[in-house]
Amino acid sequence: MITCLAGGVGAARFLSGLVQVVPPEEITAVVNTGDDIVLHGLHISPDLDTVTYTLAGAINPETGWGLAGETWSAMQSLDRYGGQSWFRLGDRDLATHMYRTQRLAEGAPLHEVTAEITKSWGLDLRVIPMSNDRVETRITLKAGTEIGFQQWFVGQQHATAVSSISFEGAVDSTPAPGVLEAIESADVTVICPSNPIVSIGPLLEVPGVADALIARRDSCVAISPIIAGRALKGPADSLMSDLGHEPSVMGVARLYAKFASVLVVDEADASRAAVVEAEGIRCVVAPTIMSSPAAAADLARATIDAVR
Amino acid sequence: MITCLAGGVGAARFLSGLVQVVPPEEITAVVNTGDDIVLHGLHISPDLDTVTYTLAGAINPETGWGLAGETWSAMQSLDRYGGQSWFRLGDRDLATHMYRTQRLAEGAPLHEVTAEITKSWGLDLRVIPMSNDRVETRITLKAGTEIGFQQWFVGQQHATAVSSISFEGAVDSTPAPGVLEAIESADVTVICPSNPIVSIGPLLEVPGVADALIARRDSCVAISPIIAGRALKGPADSLMSDLGHEPSVMGVARLYAKFASVLVVDEADASRAAVVEAEGIRCVVAPTIMSSPAAAADLARATIDAVR
Repeated sequence: MITCLAGGVGAARFLSGLVQVVPPEEITAVVNTGDDIVLHGLHISPDLDTVTYTLAGAINPETGWGLAGETWSAMQSLDRYGGQSWFRLGDRDLATHMYRTQRLAEGAPLHEVTAEITKSWGLDLRVIPMSNDRVETRITLKAGTEIGFQQWFVGQQHATAVSSISFEGAVDSTPAPGVLEAIESADVTVICPSNPIVSIGPLLEVPGVADALIARRDSCVAISPIIAGRALKGPADSLMSDLGHEPSVMGVARLYAKFASVLVVDEADASRAAVVEAEGIRCVVAPTIMSSPAAAADLARATIDAVR
Repeated sequence: MITCLAGGVGAARFLSGLVQVVPPEEITAVVNTGDDIVLHGLHISPDLDTVTYTLAGAINPETGWGLAGETWSAMQSLDRYGGQSWFRLGDRDLATHMYRTQRLAEGAPLHEVTAEITKSWGLDLRVIPMSNDRVETRITLKAGTEIGFQQWFVGQQHATAVSSISFEGAVDSTPAPGVLEAIESADVTVICPSNPIVSIGPLLEVPGVADALIARRDSCVAISPIIAGRALKGPADSLMSDLGHEPSVMGVARLYAKFASVLVVDEADASRAAVVEAEGIRCVVAPTIMSSPAAAADLARATIDAVR
């Protein structure tokens, strides 16, 4: 059994490699929901959907989010009203949020709704939200104002400097059913190549998750989302920098050494293996850029081998 | 100034005639919201939207609801999930509900949101919901179960016999700003050819509306939605019958005599004028089938002339 802690795009790509080398039935993805947003009354879970759409082969390959071949009639009409169209929702994608919102309103917990959605897409791996409770990633800007994660990430295209981050509701949240068991019983736990601060960070704040990881540190392997000091996509590098972490494999090693016994770094960082290991975490070098399905499968294989 | 009490399709057609014969700026439509439903988290106001889309020339002429040239990607995708797709929402129509829901969540009252939406569509008449408060038309079936209006009207295609109807929340509701003033200051008030029970009925239950109408009965004219014992569209006839009202112009006269001084009936009911007047309401005969824009304009003209 393999359990993966997952954010959005990077994690989804890694999982699409993993299902090529391990039977999907043996995989559990525990997914960040700190990015979730209620907009237009709809409960949107961007990371859950990115993971689902990617594994269903339905993701828009150009953007890394949303559905391929999407249409935008609703958004175009929303523009007529001067509605909030900064968060792009395609017509087919909307159905996912409509279904989720309706089911939640009917009293179904998020992990059940997520199972229904992934089943509809024919996925064989298990996808669980980190919690059924609302945990909200909040961003405090250097300028002083506090905004929601998506307002910063999408609305401001994560271009604004950040002074601190909080996970509202995390302290009082409970892991979704199956989350702790999936970590405790896993042969291998993978911290996916996701943003350590805002994708993996919220997961670690859900009570019980960090302790469960620490207890199984020997079987936990992380993949650095930082390659030669830069994030492939998204703001992991600038965010680490803003918050006082070195945006490098060493910075990632420092953040993860407590939870993982191995850090997989890209070949571009081969020369920094010793610096990583000085942080108390074994370093394995492998190509981590998942530019093709084969590359994603190779990374998945190397990751599992690194800790097995 | 002309104030119209309005339901959906019939009222919308009448209003589209009225704007041809009276400057739209002089018209206020007070619209039923008892049919409103929250589905998929979205606040849907079918009668407000039917009035708006019709007056904007954007209504689907075949169905009488929804937008012309609509696409259905979201609904088709919702079917994948086995979601609730019995209430059809086109992709462009969805934007209206998304905008309304978001604005309500931001704290804007429904009458303000409605004004924003009608302005976006370029309407010059004033469209006001009957109340900013939630008033919910509930249907108790002969079989005993109580269901929401849309579950009966759309979900069961109003084919199930009804034993009673209630308007949940009506007693504690307040008329939306402008509603009572529009009735009190109108030169003419029109009760549109809408379902007397479930379209006009909820309006009359909003505290203050019935009294305001009674006080201005002399200037209030109603149009019978029943022609030769039948509703042109919808369940007005069967519903009147189920609830013990004769499904005829006489039944309509009995329901409206307290509020209106004139009832306009179709030429098909010319022979029943005396029966109507025996109920204490003056009867005017005119063609009431609005089969063309010209026919709707003629009916509007005849209706106003009947009471002026």
